[in-house]
Amino acid sequence: MKFAIVGTGALGGFYGGLLAKIGQEVHFLMRSDATFVRQYGLRVDSKLGDFHLPSVHVHESVDTMPECDCVIIALKSTQNSQLAKLLPPLLRQGGIALVLQNGLHVEQSTREVLGPGVVAGGCCFLCSNKVGPGHIRHLDYGKILMGPYRGMLDDEPGPSIASLEGIRDIFRQTGIECNVTDDLSLARWRKLMWNIPFNGLSVMLNSSTDAIMRHAHSRALAKSIIEEVRSTAVACGHDIEQDFVLYMMDHTDEMVPYDSSMRLDFLAGRPIEVEVIYGNAIRAAERKGIDAPIMRAMYRQLHFLADNRLPP
Amino acid sequence: MKFAIVGTGALGGFYGGLLAKIGQEVHFLMRSDATFVRQYGLRVDSKLGDFHLPSVHVHESVDTMPECDCVIIALKSTQNSQLAKLLPPLLRQGGIALVLQNGLHVEQSTREVLGPGVVAGGCCFLCSNKVGPGHIRHLDYGKILMGPYRGMLDDEPGPSIASLEGIRDIFRQTGIECNVTDDLSLARWRKLMWNIPFNGLSVMLNSSTDAIMRHAHSRALAKSIIEEVRSTAVACGHDIEQDFVLYMMDHTDEMVPYDSSMRLDFLAGRPIEVEVIYGNAIRAAERKGIDAPIMRAMYRQLHFLADNRLPP
Repeated sequence: MKFAIVGTGALGGFYGGLLAKIGQEVHFLMRSDATFVRQYGLRVDSKLGDFHLPSVHVHESVDTMPECDCVIIALKSTQNSQLAKLLPPLLRQGGIALVLQNGLHVEQSTREVLGPGVVAGGCCFLCSNKVGPGHIRHLDYGKILMGPYRGMLDDEPGPSIASLEGIRDIFRQTGIECNVTDDLSLARWRKLMWNIPFNGLSVMLNSSTDAIMRHAHSRALAKSIIEEVRSTAVACGHDIEQDFVLYMMDHTDEMVPYDSSMRLDFLAGRPIEVEVIYGNAIRAAERKGIDAPIMRAMYRQLHFLADNRLPP
Repeated sequence: MKFAIVGTGALGGFYGGLLAKIGQEVHFLMRSDATFVRQYGLRVDSKLGDFHLPSVHVHESVDTMPECDCVIIALKSTQNSQLAKLLPPLLRQGGIALVLQNGLHVEQSTREVLGPGVVAGGCCFLCSNKVGPGHIRHLDYGKILMGPYRGMLDDEPGPSIASLEGIRDIFRQTGIECNVTDDLSLARWRKLMWNIPFNGLSVMLNSSTDAIMRHAHSRALAKSIIEEVRSTAVACGHDIEQDFVLYMMDHTDEMVPYDSSMRLDFLAGRPIEVEVIYGNAIRAAERKGIDAPIMRAMYRQLHFLADNRLPP
């Protein structure tokens, strides 16, 4: 199988590096790091074992890339307007586009470019940062839960479960835990129960997750946000058990101190993923006539903060 | 009549200065500015007309102060633990303690020290800052709406309306608009419809009111907070018309660019008035079984931000 990695950052570099390490043919699309990686290769420091790939397929443009069986979209969703230009030449007939981005209906941009039936989404539970050109630091986790994307109204055909299981088996060979679900929307909402509280609070409170969990007031705030996301998801028809709120709190207590990708983007002056994480969740709730007051307040506060940053 | 001003800051210095200017006997309790004001007097730059009082009654301790007919509490409410020590020697038999602080039930600390029947509260609509020792800059407004304080459950006797009208008449002589209401709780809730959105947002968004009103998202957020305060007040039994939400928005649009006192306190590393403005409003709502999700989220966020400031 041939893989394309569209966006070789903290996530794309990590998963693409793992796939290349086990001998898969992996084509990396990258911009600023291309010259460096051609010369020095790709380096991944990981709790699964550090590794260095001296020679990888580096592309600065899709024009030089072959058609691939699996196109992994690992750009930030704030760059999704580029997908219309990037994706069409990359996907082989019968291939699958796997969107490894955060947020609800974040696959829709890819779906609009490639049409129905070929797009899957994956929730990645990954703490990973890019620390230098061609240099990824994997801090913790790495699990992927993927499933067929069936459109905004969940009424389109998605790729077959069997085809996703083929990709799953390859990921498993890298040592990563990988699973396939038939209910991608449920997986996305469960993931939002972490991203909505902690991505936003890390920016609004200018703090890492451990500081948020340590202070009584921010801890209570995080929990109330998780509860709001859960009750919104339940009202949208997704069955998430009440205990999952406490699981998310415990899980975050046990995490290594971590700056969320939203906070890193914010501090670096890059766009932040407010629309796919907050906006799409609020709009999904609105379509069901549900209010989500804290999520909406966070959405507005984050937009203001992002638009009023001083240059880094 | 003799007046005591307990706390000669942006508010106490302004109103006390106005009272002294028209010839009332005003005793100012102050700390760090005492030596300076004794030597150089009190200066007020005001849109009502600048003035300078070369000689005022300055006290660094209540021990040198006479018993007064009207004791004006103009400290920040974060210093209310000092009132038990400060107030008892100051109030003449038959006198009135007038609490010119922000927040709901902010009079309760004074009430606990002085007993029932002698405490009034006043809502001040004032943009004023202290810009140097003994130097107040009055930017806009100045209206006072005062009423008898009747305890946490609104079931105690307060001072008579007639006695408050006596104080009102003196304030009016200074050129300030001053009125008396029989329903202080309603006045406090109406004032909270400004303080809750704009004090908090000015800290959370690190912005002055004009920047908050200019950006579409923060503007919408401010409006949704005002609406939540109103619906909470209504559910608590206070009759506030829907149009008052728009009035508050329009009023803020027309204000001079202003750093709220909470923001100035926050930036200077001083305690901020989270409990009397947010905590007391949330607790009043809780007693009626009402949830106020955005106010509660702000309360928690502001506590975290205040506790995690870098030293100024």
